[in-house]
Amino acid sequence: MHVNAGHNTKQHAAEEYVQIDDSAWAPFPEAFSQGGITWRLLHVSPEMGSWTAIFDCPAGSSFNPHIHTGPGEYLLTKGRMDVRGGKHQGGDTAVAPGYGFESSGAYHDKTHFPVASEFFMTFLGPLAFVRPDGSIIANIGWAEAQGAWDAFVASQKAA
Amino acid sequence: MHVNAGHNTKQHAAEEYVQIDDSAWAPFPEAFSQGGITWRLLHVSPEMGSWTAIFDCPAGSSFNPHIHTGPGEYLLTKGRMDVRGGKHQGGDTAVAPGYGFESSGAYHDKTHFPVASEFFMTFLGPLAFVRPDGSIIANIGWAEAQGAWDAFVASQKAA
Amino acid sequence: MHVNAGHNTKQHAAEEYVQIDDSAWAPFPEAFSQGGITWRLLHVSPEMGSWTAIFDCPAGSSFNPHIHTGPGEYLLTKGRMDVRGGKHQGGDTAVAPGYGFESSGAYHDKTHFPVASEFFMTFLGPLAFVRPDGSIIANIGWAEAQGAWDAFVASQKAA
Amino acid sequence: MHVNAGHNTKQHAAEEYVQIDDSAWAPFPEAFSQGGITWRLLHVSPEMGSWTAIFDCPAGSSFNPHIHTGPGEYLLTKGRMDVRGGKHQGGDTAVAPGYGFESSGAYHDKTHFPVASEFFMTFLGPLAFVRPDGSIIANIGWAEAQGAWDAFVASQKAA
Repeated sequence: MHVNAGHNTKQHAAEEYVQIDDSAWAPFPEAFSQGGITWRLLHVSPEMGSWTAIFDCPAGSSFNPHIHTGPGEYLLTKGRMDVRGGKHQGGDTAVAPGYGFESSGAYHDKTHFPVASEFFMTFLGPLAFVRPDGSIIANIGWAEAQGAWDAFVASQKAA
Repeated sequence: MHVNAGHNTKQHAAEEYVQIDDSAWAPFPEAFSQGGITWRLLHVSPEMGSWTAIFDCPAGSSFNPHIHTGPGEYLLTKGRMDVRGGKHQGGDTAVAPGYGFESSGAYHDKTHFPVASEFFMTFLGPLAFVRPDGSIIANIGWAEAQGAWDAFVASQKAA
Repeated sequence: MHVNAGHNTKQHAAEEYVQIDDSAWAPFPEAFSQGGITWRLLHVSPEMGSWTAIFDCPAGSSFNPHIHTGPGEYLLTKGRMDVRGGKHQGGDTAVAPGYGFESSGAYHDKTHFPVASEFFMTFLGPLAFVRPDGSIIANIGWAEAQGAWDAFVASQKAA
Repeated sequence: MHVNAGHNTKQHAAEEYVQIDDSAWAPFPEAFSQGGITWRLLHVSPEMGSWTAIFDCPAGSSFNPHIHTGPGEYLLTKGRMDVRGGKHQGGDTAVAPGYGFESSGAYHDKTHFPVASEFFMTFLGPLAFVRPDGSIIANIGWAEAQGAWDAFVASQKAA
């Protein structure tokens, strides 16, 4: 009888390690942030659609309005982060060391850093950056994050 | 010493069962499809950002161009489905009973049903319906799918 | 300054298609089932730890007691399936066409098929087959499922 | 016609915040570790089967042999961690600040901390703690982690 494997045998995914402080971090796109945020991509899982990064946020910096299409988890390792407007507006104000879970559908009108801060975050699915009328400027997921990071690495090598 | 649970104790998620043929299916929004497709929402997992549905597709019907932001899996239970243009355009042509895995980032220019067909599909994250220039019309995830389904159920009860 | 990519650039996961009825199905291990169940592996996602399969269950067959460590979703395409003891014992009795969501931690004392049945199922994480005292016989996840399936395919080719 | 919603309308998952340094951490079970490791549970997602925690590991401490049934990601915030035997045995040696991805199926013979260390980690699915012969002692997932943490919190309140 004809036998069709019907699927390609797959290997375990490789383990990965990144030494976070061994090289330069990239400027986070100004289209999506203000105040000089830099970042480093740490991991992407294309099969799952997830990605992980760490961000350095100067005092006064912020991310533009976006929606977490899937769940995200952060560890604030330094400073202070006002999420969903901060505590006084019904959101959260994280003070390092702080942990947060942002759920699928969470709308971050403005994520703001009143003092120099740093946070690590995992993302399942894309961030949807949005205009004031709710229309979507762009979905930023693992592929877009990887594209931006790789472009930065290439530019550094060329310099 | 002060003790803070730091998290709310959570219960197991409830098991669910849906008798698929016990009631009417909803028209799938004409903004996103053509040819009279109907559907039934089967499940949403808000914590994960996933959702599951079954679709009935008359001969000649199709879905408008969209991107799978996360992975999706389908079981074609009846008929034939041309995915990513169909086999002759480098995509896949599924013939029931057929299974497919669509990966994060898969662009479905046009998913077309040449004969009356039915398929079941799981989605992790939203579908991004897109214009010809690549800009996003809307992200349709678990919340939007649930909203559309609940509106249909309410309209049926009111009728 | 030294620049370290810090991660390997990854490709989109490949799309996959399986023609379900084009070849033989494998006997499901007798260590974990009774009554002649056969199955076909459809997909594994090693990066996520998920897997998908379809099962053909003769009248009177059953799966041995197991725990779903992660969520699972099924579509019963033929017959009848008593889950978690069936409806009269507080579980569910699925009648085709039926859909079910089994949550992380769901204990399936005995999944039983009173008539010839068939179901499709997605799994996130392993099934833990357990002894009456609750101790674990084996975790069956994507890697174990793939190993069993590949052994079957190899045996068919050798025959 | 009869209309059956067929699913219960669900809410967005709640956002969560944990102030990591506001209360005591729990001893990690001695059945699974050595050397006085303490930990704090930060989050569980029952619907997805994931959980997140932070661990404080004195110099010389270690975790007993276990398998990651699903993917896990860590951020080493202090000290040094030898994973899968450490770099000289083919594994990784993380030095803070370091990030790692441990894939589904990763076997951690011994995770060892030569100096006082701290790490944050996300888990999808259970850890399977194993005996030298490979048999499973216990699956520790979100439910078991939550049970251990809640027992600790209750004991602190009673004290």
